[in-house]
Amino acid sequence: MAESLVFGNRELTEMCRYVVSSGGKRLRPALCILSYRACGGEDPSIPVKIGSAFEIVHSASLIHDDINDQGEIRRGRKTLHKEYTLTKAIVAGDCMFTVGFRLLASVKSKIVGYIVEASGAMGEGEFVQKDNEHFSKVTEEDYMHIISGKTAKLFEACAKSGSYMAGGTEEEVETIGRFAHDLGLAFQIVDDALDVTGDPHNTGKAVGTDLLEGKPTLPVIYAMQDEVHGAEIRELFERPFIEREDVVKTLNLISRTDSIKRCMDKARELVEGALSYLGPIPESRYKESLKSLARFVVDRDR
Amino acid sequence: MAESLVFGNRELTEMCRYVVSSGGKRLRPALCILSYRACGGEDPSIPVKIGSAFEIVHSASLIHDDINDQGEIRRGRKTLHKEYTLTKAIVAGDCMFTVGFRLLASVKSKIVGYIVEASGAMGEGEFVQKDNEHFSKVTEEDYMHIISGKTAKLFEACAKSGSYMAGGTEEEVETIGRFAHDLGLAFQIVDDALDVTGDPHNTGKAVGTDLLEGKPTLPVIYAMQDEVHGAEIRELFERPFIEREDVVKTLNLISRTDSIKRCMDKARELVEGALSYLGPIPESRYKESLKSLARFVVDRDR
Repeated sequence: MAESLVFGNRELTEMCRYVVSSGGKRLRPALCILSYRACGGEDPSIPVKIGSAFEIVHSASLIHDDINDQGEIRRGRKTLHKEYTLTKAIVAGDCMFTVGFRLLASVKSKIVGYIVEASGAMGEGEFVQKDNEHFSKVTEEDYMHIISGKTAKLFEACAKSGSYMAGGTEEEVETIGRFAHDLGLAFQIVDDALDVTGDPHNTGKAVGTDLLEGKPTLPVIYAMQDEVHGAEIRELFERPFIEREDVVKTLNLISRTDSIKRCMDKARELVEGALSYLGPIPESRYKESLKSLARFVVDRDR
Repeated sequence: MAESLVFGNRELTEMCRYVVSSGGKRLRPALCILSYRACGGEDPSIPVKIGSAFEIVHSASLIHDDINDQGEIRRGRKTLHKEYTLTKAIVAGDCMFTVGFRLLASVKSKIVGYIVEASGAMGEGEFVQKDNEHFSKVTEEDYMHIISGKTAKLFEACAKSGSYMAGGTEEEVETIGRFAHDLGLAFQIVDDALDVTGDPHNTGKAVGTDLLEGKPTLPVIYAMQDEVHGAEIRELFERPFIEREDVVKTLNLISRTDSIKRCMDKARELVEGALSYLGPIPESRYKESLKSLARFVVDRDR
């Protein structure tokens, strides 16, 4: 990634490196590489290049998300627009998108289509999410639509690209895409649950950040359905501006409902379903790794 | 363009249409269509599709530029982030980039490379421009580098895509690309001169906007070299915040130098050079139209 993110402008290069060097789980490249290998691909340099492209596009979207959410901390470090400026961060995000597209186009034009589709869905998902901020009537269905666009479509694109480049059959490409899509849904649900229950030391961000922003996440949606505490949580969620102390109060209320348990059940159910899609993929140690990756998604604490 | 900008989200669709329906000179599609025709292309639907993609990417970059420059008026209408919100405008810009890439990819993968290269240069140009705001030591060379990235590379990509899709020879594609690139430089110089001398009724924006933002444009660079008024203009340009009345004062000072004349001479020289590149392109009414387009670029008042 660092090799691809070299610009004529020193500071632009530095900013992009700041973003990609801050770690992260690298799930998208992992999905791409394992899907490539599981479908019989033999040249590891190909999925590494594609995986980098996906991670770069993902990082670009995080830059713009952080601006939109006024996020200050990401992965335990200052967000890019806080460390530099909003202006430069918008441009750096655009440049990273471009580098991602360029990298993919340099491998194979077909896979540009996958990422373009995913990027479009990411924008739409972000939009619907914004529209549902502080909106207590948001449904589980709305939420699934949002996270499909925001997260799952890119997971799907990573896996499909890997499989396609390995020369996978049409069935293999589609099936591994469905696996990755539903894994992405589960991943996002767990991410949103960690916003309620996570340890900031592990997650690299303060607890309750989504609540503070009024994001319509599944833990809140389920908690708002609670017979005892639902009404109070709805009232707090609807407030256009919520104080830190009310966030703490809301987190406490949510933890008294069965919301987190329901979220984790839903995530596990999605992962089980995702694993069942892997049937047509031949047995191999890469397929085993894909399964481990899927289990990690629901068992992680960061 | 309107047909391509349809999203599942109604407001997102509305925002994108707001941007592309606000007019503009449509120079980029014109360059693409004429380059296609001048190189022997016969199916008008192809360059129309490509031209739309370029105009969409261009519009996307304007959305982000307006956010970065805190612009409030564009083409006589409120800028997108003022009419909607900053958040939604960032996302709408990203979505429009994606639609542009998708449109191009649907025509031919090769031309995705042209726009990716141009988009990267646009980001870099914007970055270097930001770095040189209020910087009185900025040189004409810096400026040419900035506008090559910001404007000329996209002009080049439009023309090259048209020529390539028409089955133009490698020489034709390159030569028409050089023509368009230098036309883009001239276009931007005239644009920057209009910021000093233009009639807001024609240009759709207040005079002196670039000055207010401390943008390092050629009219300012030349004016700062003036023996009589240069020192005062430099001092005004260096102020991190400049009042409206000082903008008016600076505009008056600039008009007392030969700066605008030098800018227009430079633009005309670039257009003459650009026209000379058209030599290898066979004579046709489309080539004549390309020449008219080039003359319009320096003779316009909007």
